[in-house]
Amino acid sequence: MSAPAPTTPSAGPVLVVGAGLLGTSVGLALSGRGVEVWLRDLQYEHVRTATGLGAGSPVPEGARPALVVVAVPPDHLADAVADALETTDAVVTDVGSVKAAPLAAVRARVSAEELSRYVGSHPLAGSERSGPLAASARLFEGRPWAVTSHETSTPEAQRAVVGLAELCGATPFFFTPQEHDDAVARTSHVPHVVASLMAGALADAPATHLSLSGQGVRDVTRVAAGDPGLWQQILSANAAPVVGLLREVGDQLDRLVAALEDAERPALAAILGRGVDGTAAIPGKHGGPPVEETGVFVVVPDHPGELARLLADVGAIGVNLEDLHIDHDPGRPTGLVELRVAVAEADHLLSALADRGWAGHG
Amino acid sequence: MSAPAPTTPSAGPVLVVGAGLLGTSVGLALSGRGVEVWLRDLQYEHVRTATGLGAGSPVPEGARPALVVVAVPPDHLADAVADALETTDAVVTDVGSVKAAPLAAVRARVSAEELSRYVGSHPLAGSERSGPLAASARLFEGRPWAVTSHETSTPEAQRAVVGLAELCGATPFFFTPQEHDDAVARTSHVPHVVASLMAGALADAPATHLSLSGQGVRDVTRVAAGDPGLWQQILSANAAPVVGLLREVGDQLDRLVAALEDAERPALAAILGRGVDGTAAIPGKHGGPPVEETGVFVVVPDHPGELARLLADVGAIGVNLEDLHIDHDPGRPTGLVELRVAVAEADHLLSALADRGWAGHG
Repeated sequence: MSAPAPTTPSAGPVLVVGAGLLGTSVGLALSGRGVEVWLRDLQYEHVRTATGLGAGSPVPEGARPALVVVAVPPDHLADAVADALETTDAVVTDVGSVKAAPLAAVRARVSAEELSRYVGSHPLAGSERSGPLAASARLFEGRPWAVTSHETSTPEAQRAVVGLAELCGATPFFFTPQEHDDAVARTSHVPHVVASLMAGALADAPATHLSLSGQGVRDVTRVAAGDPGLWQQILSANAAPVVGLLREVGDQLDRLVAALEDAERPALAAILGRGVDGTAAIPGKHGGPPVEETGVFVVVPDHPGELARLLADVGAIGVNLEDLHIDHDPGRPTGLVELRVAVAEADHLLSALADRGWAGHG
Repeated sequence: MSAPAPTTPSAGPVLVVGAGLLGTSVGLALSGRGVEVWLRDLQYEHVRTATGLGAGSPVPEGARPALVVVAVPPDHLADAVADALETTDAVVTDVGSVKAAPLAAVRARVSAEELSRYVGSHPLAGSERSGPLAASARLFEGRPWAVTSHETSTPEAQRAVVGLAELCGATPFFFTPQEHDDAVARTSHVPHVVASLMAGALADAPATHLSLSGQGVRDVTRVAAGDPGLWQQILSANAAPVVGLLREVGDQLDRLVAALEDAERPALAAILGRGVDGTAAIPGKHGGPPVEETGVFVVVPDHPGELARLLADVGAIGVNLEDLHIDHDPGRPTGLVELRVAVAEADHLLSALADRGWAGHG
């Protein structure tokens, strides 16, 4: 990662290959900025829907795009990128979540000139929904967008891709393809697997046991609801880094089981302490230094009007919310809302909320 | 688990042993209901603080409590329960998060009459903070409170403990001690371990890699910030069920690694699909059937006043929020707020928010 290079916006026309959630969202964002966008998809129905939403128009005869954005599923990515490099003289990028394996496959197929026009990229945005109807011009707003030039990418190609990210409202970050893949293996793919394994352990549990589920297990397993069809492609495309990290996690799991069986408390404490260190290493909001957070719990009648009133009071008190959770609550008409704030602000927030009539605790 | 028995509130006086977060919170809740509460702690400073907060008074000469609530760390729980049974003729309960091993240790020490006055319990409430200053009369409000009678508990003892839970504002659920421990191993202890192992894999990661951290990895690892000193006691006290489930998770991890290495897509899809099933098995809000949720993302200027305005609009639109996340956002003055709602309500919410000027997407 390095400082962003000076950028020029894509002048268009831009050809988007794959009019699903990401491709249609790119089309909507660029069209909204006045860039001419053409859309192609194996399912012509998707093109019809996306053009109906205003994401662009079908590819005209003899079209010569300046930039091609490949937005197809991971299994088809390398072929679609190579096709675009061979059939146009445009800069070509893609929005896939894995970068090294597709680059290797493209390199094996295309000429050196063609390869120099390719710069991979990866907007860190998405949705549990898919298809063009779930698309939005704002999908990338405020999100990181990884730009992964390779050894022979031209500076012009990199500038075009950075311009694409910025036109979509995202913030470009610069990685080599392998560095990117190692990073997302750790921050996205392995967490998904771990969540999925944990959620799998709930699948056959007695319902009475699951009645004791709190916010913790909900948080740990939430991402595991993602589409298995898409995730098997992502994990397969990034298998080596994912397997490497999963082996490390598995080794630590074995150590923890042994420590529990042998009642070796220091070993157990060391593994748990390393977990505390890991949570503290995740960067804070706005990419700043990690903020040590704590929860302030407030009893709130369970409808959004009361939650709005609470947050208006939090705003008036002047404390910055890092996050918020609505706690799940068996058999009562009140909700428990957890306000996540910096440790240094928690006591002040609690007492100021109490002054305004809110019952809460730290 | 069975239907709640008819209950009688604890008439008091109640002796609370251990004036930390939980003990002091019990004292505050009971004192607020007019019950006489006495407080004891090895650290007399804690008693002074708790009585200063209004949680009760120091134990008087010749005190004869009707109920003893043991609220000491897991390592000291069984001894403190046995002491209370031997030195009083009161009903004795505890608020520890593990039930079978302490019961076995108590049974090995006390008489049959003494044992019949013991009913374990476990309020599913807590905080990342500890000590009497973090206590609150509302800590248990709306929370599940597991009541774990054993074979020879008297009905009077169970009624006293159910009354305690209800006076604290919690909802009693009934389990055998082992059933309780199996349930919390699955819904709390193993999720904590899994989160901790995942967070541990972030501890030494390059900061540039962690800049790609999104909401997913934050959710998966959040609980891993919990106190390792407390968690090693909890895990050690419930080692057998935790180890059993961790072995199952480890076996699935090995299967997933093998599937990735051998590119066996159906095996990979099956493991991921089981995770999807697990997330769907967690009960919905208020203990009702699971609600199929989705996220609606809204761009919000990053201060609580705007969030309040958004939630007032959500309230006016009449959609019920299941949860809410404030997305973390590198280098921008806007936040992205994820409103978690039932799938059936997402499209209506999006269009109604758009009518009110909010830019969002599904």
